[in-house]
Formats: sequence, structure tokens, C-alpha cells
Amino acid sequence: MEVMNNNLTLFSDVATNTESTHSQVVPITLFIAVLCVCLVIGHLLEDYPWLNESITAILIGFVVGTIILCTSKWKSSRLLTFSEELFFIYLLPPIIFNAGFQVKKKQFFHNFFPIMLFGITGVLISTSIVAAGCWWLFPKLGFEGLSISEYLSIGTIFSSTDTVCTLQVLSQDETPLLYSLVFGEGVVNDATSVVLFNAVQKINADTLNAQTALRIFLDFLYLFTTSTLLGVAAGLVTAYILRGLYVGRHSSVREIALMVLVAYLSYMLAELFELSGILTVFFTGVLMSHYSWHNVTESSRTTTRHVWYAFATLSFIAETFIFLYVGMDAFDYEKWKMSKLSFWNKLGIYSTVMLLILIGRAAFVFPLSIISNYMHRSGGESTKISRQHQVVIWWAGLMRGAVSVALAFKQFTHSGITLDHTNATMITTTIVIVLFSTIVFGFLTKPLVDHLLPSTNSNTTRNTSDSDSGSPNEDMTLPLLSVEESTSENLSRAKDNLTMLVDRPVYTIHSYWRRFDVAYMRPLFGGPGSDDNGSSC
Amino acid sequence: MEVMNNNLTLFSDVATNTESTHSQVVPITLFIAVLCVCLVIGHLLEDYPWLNESITAILIGFVVGTIILCTSKWKSSRLLTFSEELFFIYLLPPIIFNAGFQVKKKQFFHNFFPIMLFGITGVLISTSIVAAGCWWLFPKLGFEGLSISEYLSIGTIFSSTDTVCTLQVLSQDETPLLYSLVFGEGVVNDATSVVLFNAVQKINADTLNAQTALRIFLDFLYLFTTSTLLGVAAGLVTAYILRGLYVGRHSSVREIALMVLVAYLSYMLAELFELSGILTVFFTGVLMSHYSWHNVTESSRTTTRHVWYAFATLSFIAETFIFLYVGMDAFDYEKWKMSKLSFWNKLGIYSTVMLLILIGRAAFVFPLSIISNYMHRSGGESTKISRQHQVVIWWAGLMRGAVSVALAFKQFTHSGITLDHTNATMITTTIVIVLFSTIVFGFLTKPLVDHLLPSTNSNTTRNTSDSDSGSPNEDMTLPLLSVEESTSENLSRAKDNLTMLVDRPVYTIHSYWRRFDVAYMRPLFGGPGSDDNGSSC
Repeated sequence: MEVMNNNLTLFSDVATNTESTHSQVVPITLFIAVLCVCLVIGHLLEDYPWLNESITAILIGFVVGTIILCTSKWKSSRLLTFSEELFFIYLLPPIIFNAGFQVKKKQFFHNFFPIMLFGITGVLISTSIVAAGCWWLFPKLGFEGLSISEYLSIGTIFSSTDTVCTLQVLSQDETPLLYSLVFGEGVVNDATSVVLFNAVQKINADTLNAQTALRIFLDFLYLFTTSTLLGVAAGLVTAYILRGLYVGRHSSVREIALMVLVAYLSYMLAELFELSGILTVFFTGVLMSHYSWHNVTESSRTTTRHVWYAFATLSFIAETFIFLYVGMDAFDYEKWKMSKLSFWNKLGIYSTVMLLILIGRAAFVFPLSIISNYMHRSGGESTKISRQHQVVIWWAGLMRGAVSVALAFKQFTHSGITLDHTNATMITTTIVIVLFSTIVFGFLTKPLVDHLLPSTNSNTTRNTSDSDSGSPNEDMTLPLLSVEESTSENLSRAKDNLTMLVDRPVYTIHSYWRRFDVAYMRPLFGGPGSDDNGSSC
Repeated sequence: MEVMNNNLTLFSDVATNTESTHSQVVPITLFIAVLCVCLVIGHLLEDYPWLNESITAILIGFVVGTIILCTSKWKSSRLLTFSEELFFIYLLPPIIFNAGFQVKKKQFFHNFFPIMLFGITGVLISTSIVAAGCWWLFPKLGFEGLSISEYLSIGTIFSSTDTVCTLQVLSQDETPLLYSLVFGEGVVNDATSVVLFNAVQKINADTLNAQTALRIFLDFLYLFTTSTLLGVAAGLVTAYILRGLYVGRHSSVREIALMVLVAYLSYMLAELFELSGILTVFFTGVLMSHYSWHNVTESSRTTTRHVWYAFATLSFIAETFIFLYVGMDAFDYEKWKMSKLSFWNKLGIYSTVMLLILIGRAAFVFPLSIISNYMHRSGGESTKISRQHQVVIWWAGLMRGAVSVALAFKQFTHSGITLDHTNATMITTTIVIVLFSTIVFGFLTKPLVDHLLPSTNSNTTRNTSDSDSGSPNEDMTLPLLSVEESTSENLSRAKDNLTMLVDRPVYTIHSYWRRFDVAYMRPLFGGPGSDDNGSSC
């Protein structure tokens, strides 16, 4: 029980030294002030669809970094040193929980198969290609000294995508399947890359053979399954408790507090059992919003909406924080100096990685789309992924964002400080890739989507305002959780007949789940339509 | 610019040591799990009006503390060590901002004079009496070794009230003045005691004479004024920015994020300038909700409500956290052992402090009520504080809560660890007083209020559910912000005539402010009714 006596040194060691406390107040205050400026400028620039919050934050980070660099006499361009704890314990969980919570359940479960195919298999394929490519090409460019395990980490780092930019210019109404695939893949991809990264870290292989690859794969499967189960369990327990409390009086604040705490608890439990907290908290979010939606009393929707907004805000601040940090870190003179490669070799490395990302993504989007289309072969045009849509999906996942940065810092720095040439090169490479892909690819997204999907052209302006920066407003997100579910519910008995089982094998899995959900899960845990069915409450 | 290079050691020093990180996961996870249990049990026990969230949390803290004490073999009863940083940087700001944000503006400004009289003058009187009483009586009970400055700190520690329990059993509809006074005094009192505590700490007097007292008073006035001005400025700037952004597109998430960040920024700025962050963030909250209410677009109310809920939840978690901690800390064997006084001397000290609290509060509630009644002498019965109401106000402020604990830990511990006999005695005394007043006085509140205000008897059950644990639901809180204001606005021109100036001197200040607000402030910063008046937007 020694662990019980352990101080919360996280906070208390600062408290012991008043001097250091005060000196921290200045950078934190400045950083928050810069964040506020970011939000205001981001809002002012909202009319320009090619500029999103991420780009704005990076550019402001550039400016602030330059100012700090000048005032600190070329010593540092940062206000705060990156800390993986800060990121993995405080910033990432709300981002991922929010992703799970705002997932459009119906769309997500409807397109469950292709989303998982892209999100999980995609990461595995992309990681293999990027890792193999780097292992083959980096030494040729004069960059040596990386271990097999580090190459695999690089593979996962550059396989996590940031689809926010593309989602901003897609129309959810006109291309629901495409929107749902890009969004769904985005969130599953985030979780998968973190899990795979952890699996690679755990194995820490010196040589890569079939056995190691199998071990990594099995470890990945184990982490993925157990983390998912823990998340599902946490979500169900919360739903059950909220449903139990339903009998009593109503207190939105207590319900919100419980949801927030259980979400965080599930994350901490997963970390405790050395699972993937990210995946756990994602599924806690999905389950919580699926079953909690109708659990809370009269103001149930309102409560869920409050939770949604609380987490959307946290997530938004966390993301802006990270992009701002990346922008500022780009001017960290020390890191650039430490990398010993020539300018052309560096440029070679950046181009290699960028090319491998393009290839790695193409290598799974197009084949997997064909597989998905084959599975849905009798589902009609609306379930087919057309050639144009495949290109958009491919493009949507080319941007690299917050998760890449976090994983790179975790792998190649020691509390945000790069110690040698190899690590410095990898950190600068990650920053360049994130900056280049976010700014250049992000800038090109709108013209490309307009060209490939000309019908959405007239709608994009409206959409930009509706779904800006991953914060679709209530009218778009929330009705999908319940209204569509309940109307489709009325039709479900008519639909779920034998013909479907023969004609549409993939949808059948969904319809079986639907029946199981309505018959057993919703009466127990609540959820859309459970009250109409006259089940216990 | 050395400060710029400063690491965010708050987090990063944990990150460097994976071992220590993991060992912290266990207590944090357990603590969150216990918090969840608290919420669930709190909800289940909601039908019993004499049990509130605070009492439940303390009792659960007892149980958990006992379990840990047993499993750790009488070594410790805590999961986490108290850290003033944790409290003053993470837990207290949301509690106080929430208090400012949910203040019913109309009631607050309407009863501004008596609220400030009770909140500010009351703390000064109570502090003097408690400090003088302890200075006179403690040595007689064999407890020596405290400095003058420590006696003054004790005075402020035991002058901060916790009115949540009484608010739960008061009816806002039947006794609006009483409710508003108790609520208003509660929040002003919290801020005032922290400011006075800081003023005392700053002076650090060895002897107390008229000059030192004057210096403390002047320092208090300086801190109070500058902190208020900073808070008002932060609130106005936010309102102005949100009003400016009003022209552009709508993004609730960005608006909420901005409000949250500016609130935190104002707190940090105040700490940076060595002012009182608590008071600053309180007035930021008041101003933000006053002017931001109508600033944001269509879903303005919704946005403000989201902010309200986000902070109410944070505040709720923070308060439960503190009471749970106090409950667990009560079984800290070390502290009890360290105090060298005999059982009867200890009991004498507890009784002395409790008695001084009763006297110190009576010494200002009754005289100040008479002054307030004299000022409102022509305001009719509705503005008079009756004898019964005076007793309820007196009683409402007898409970000691989170702020007392925090200040005591700040004064008498070193990062939560008591080092000597004197400090240990003061910490145990604080814990006993908080436990006793919360549980015993809290338990007696409902019978007392029922006895004094028999008319509210039939209503109390409904009220308990409506305004449980300081979280009045939307129907109660939010309409007061706007609907009442706008109806009263229509009547204001008819009302604000010369007769009022002669008849009701106190209300006139309010009506002057009202005119100034409507004519100059609302057109610039927004706020209720600003659009109806056709002002610039």
C-alpha cells in the first residue's frame, strides 16, 4: 500500500517552491493570452474557407515563436516545453472522448464495416509501407542510426490522420456516406495509431522477422479488444446508473459530473491495466451517447447537449493548443542546429516521408474501397464508394495533425527536449510534415473537392459555417442521434426481413445488432426509443 | 526573458519518470472512483432533505479513510496529499467563477448595498472577533505558540461561510430578499475572506497595533478594488469581443472556449500582479453573464447555458472533491498524534472556536440588518429584513466549508503535511469545525427554517429537488437573467422618477446605474435589452 502514501507530486512539488510557481505563472498566462488571440483571429478569418483553425493556430504560433525567439536572443521559441503527460493525460482524452461522443451513431454503426476496414486495416497497411520505405530510403539519404523499433514507430506516427480540414468542406447532406466514412475513419484511425504505437513500443524489437511482426499484431489485437471492452463496459455502467437514478430526482449537474468522471475513470483504468486509454475513452463516449441520450429526465437532450458542448470546447482548446505549440516549436533554433544533415539531405527526407504517406494511403484506400463495394454489391448506388469519393477519402487522410506530433514527441524527445542528432532530425521532420500537409494540402482541399464533387459547390459556404473546426452545430449533429433513429425504428420491423439476409450480407450484421439492441440492451441501459417500447424504467 | 525558457515542470517532471507516473495512476484512479460513488450515493440519498452533498461526501470520506487506514496499517488515511496549488489554481477558480456567473444579476444589483454590507463588513467584524477571541482564550487552554499574524489568519479562516446547505431549504419564490441576501453574502464572503487572508499574509505582523490594522485594512481595500477592476475589465473585454464577433458567423464552441479562457486568464493575470484572482474571476463571471447573455447569436441563451453547466459541473466536482478529502483527512492518525494537547484542552479549543464563530456572526448580522433596514426605511415591507430573516441569515453563515479548509491548509501545512504540534492542532481544529458545523448545523437547518418561516414548509420538498447542491435548474436561474430584466425595463422609465430619489435613497443608486447601463454600457458591450433599444450591433 506504499502507493497510497504517494503524494500528488504532479501539483505539490510546485507548491513547495513559491519562486518557481510564480515564474510559471508568466508563461502560462502568456500562453492562455495567445490562445485567446487565436480564437478571436480564427473567428474573424472564418469567412475564408481555405483557412481553418489549425492553419490559423500554426501561423500565430509562427509569429509568437518569432517574437519570443527575438526577445530571448535566439535561445528559445517556446513558452512551454512539450510534455507527453500534459498531452496524453490532459489534452488527448477530451479530444477522443468528444470524437466518440459526437459520432453519429446511426451512420457509424451503419457503415461500421468499411469504417473499421479503413480505420484499422488502413493503419496497419500504411504503417508497414511508411516503416519499410523509411528503413530502405533513410540510409541512402545519409540518415542512419534508427533501430527497427524506431522505424515502426515512424510508421505509426505518419499513419495517424487529421481529417478536420476535409470534413469542413464536405457536405453531410449531399454525400452522407462519404462524410460518415471520412469522419468515422478519422476517429478510428486516431485510436488505432495510438494503440499500434503502444504495441510497437512494448515489443521494442531489434530485428524484424515474421515472429516479431506476429507478436506486434497479436499485441495490437489484444490491446484493441480489451481496451474496447473496457470502454464499452464503462459506457454501459454509466448508462445503467443514469437509468437507475432516473427514478429519483433530476439533477443535470450531477449527471454531467458523473459522465465526465466515469469517462476519465475509464481512461485512467485502461492506463492502469496498460491498455489503450484512448480507445477505451472513445468507446466510452460512443456507448455513453448511445444509451444516455434518453436516460436522463425531461431535459435529457439538454443534458447530453451540455456534455457535448463541454467536451467539444475542451477538445477545441486542446487542438488549438497543440497546433499553436507546433507553430511555435517550428522556430526552435536548437533543434534545427542539432540535426547534422545537409539541406538537400533534409529536403530528401521530408520528400521521402511525404511520398510514403501518399503511397501508404493510396495502397489501402483504393483496394479496401473495392472490397467494401464488393461486400455491398447489392446495396444500390447509395452504399457504393465511387471513384471520386475514393480520391476524396484518400486526400482527406493526407493531413497530419495533433496525434502525429504527440507520438513523435513521445518517441523522440525526453520531456520535449531533443538530445541528439537522430531525434532532432525526426522531430523537425514531423514538424515539417505536419506544417506542410496542414497548410499546403489543407489549402488545396477545397478546390479539389469542388472539382471532384461539383454538386456540393453551391453548398460549401453554408457548410463551412455549420461545421466549422469539428464543431458541427446542434441542428446538424444532435438530431441524428435520436430523430432519425426513432423514425427508422418504426420501419425496422418491416425492413428486417429475410430478403435482406440474402441480398445484403453486411447490412444484416447491422440489423441483427439492431434487434439485439432494441430487445435486450435498450430496456436495460436506455437509449433512443426504449421508453416508447414500454420497457422497464 | 529567462522566464520564457521555464519548463512546464508542473507536468513534465512527472513525465521524466515513468515509474512515478504509474504509481500516481493508482491513487488518482481510486480517488475518481470514490468521487463517482459519492455522486451516485448523493443522488440516491436526495430524498432526505437533511442530507446534502457535502455531508454525504464527508461521510463517504470517513468510510474510505478508514479503509485506507486499515489497509495501510495505520500509516495514512489519504489517497492524495492536499496541495494548495491543486486547490487554488484548479479547484477554487471554477467554484468562484460559477458563483459569479450564476448570480441572479437583478437580485444581486438590487440588493447590492446589504449584500456588500454583509459580505465585506461582516468578514472584517467576524475576523476581528474570532482573532481577538482566540488570542485571548487559546493560551488559557494551554495552546500557545501562535503569532499575531497566525491569529489573524485563523480569524479569516473561520469567517468564510458555506451557505449551500441553507440555500437548499430556502424558497426563492416565497422569500426572494432572504434568498438573495444569503446567496449574495455567501459568494461575496468567499471572495472577501480570501482577499483578507492574503492581505494578512502580506503584512505578516508580529505585533498588532492601530498602524498594522490600518495597513491590513488599506491593503485589503487596495486588493479588493484593483481585483474587482481587473475582473470587470476582463468581463467587459470578453463581452465586447463577443459582440464584435456577432457580426460574423456563429460558433458556440469557440465562444464558450473564449469565455472559459478569458476567465482563466483574468485569474492568472490577477495572480501575476499579486492581486486576488478569486475576486477577479468572480467579477469576470458577473460581468460576463450580464453582458454576454444577449451577445451571441440565435442560440445565445443556449451558449450561456452551456457555459453555466460546464462551470456548475466543474464547481460541483471541486466541492465534492474537497469535502471527500476533508472526510478522509479526518482519520489521518499522524496529525492527531502530533497535537500534544490533552483531550479536554482540545475540546476546549473546538468549543471556543465554535462559540467565537457564533458570536462573531451575530455581532454583524443583527446590527448590519438594522442599518440596512434604516437605509431602506421607505422601501416597504418587502425590502425590510425581519427578525426571523435575520436569524436565518445568521444561521446560514455558521457552516464552514471548502474555503476554510483550503485557507487552513495553506496557512498551517507545507504541501498538505503538518510539521509541528501547533500546525497539527490548527488543522485538526479546522477539520473538526468543518465537520461539526456541516453535519450538526446542516442537520438542524431544515427544522430551524421550518420553525422560523412556517409558510415555506409546504414548499421545501419541491425546493430541495429544484436547487440541490447549489445547482438551481435552468427554469429557476436563467429566466431571471433576462425575462425579468426586460419586463422591468418597460416600467423603468415610469418608475425612475423624482419621487424615488426622495423616498428611496438606496434604490436610487441602483436606478442611476440602471440608466447608465442601458444608455452607455449595453450598446457597447451588449446585454439584456440592448437589441430592442435599437442600439448599434
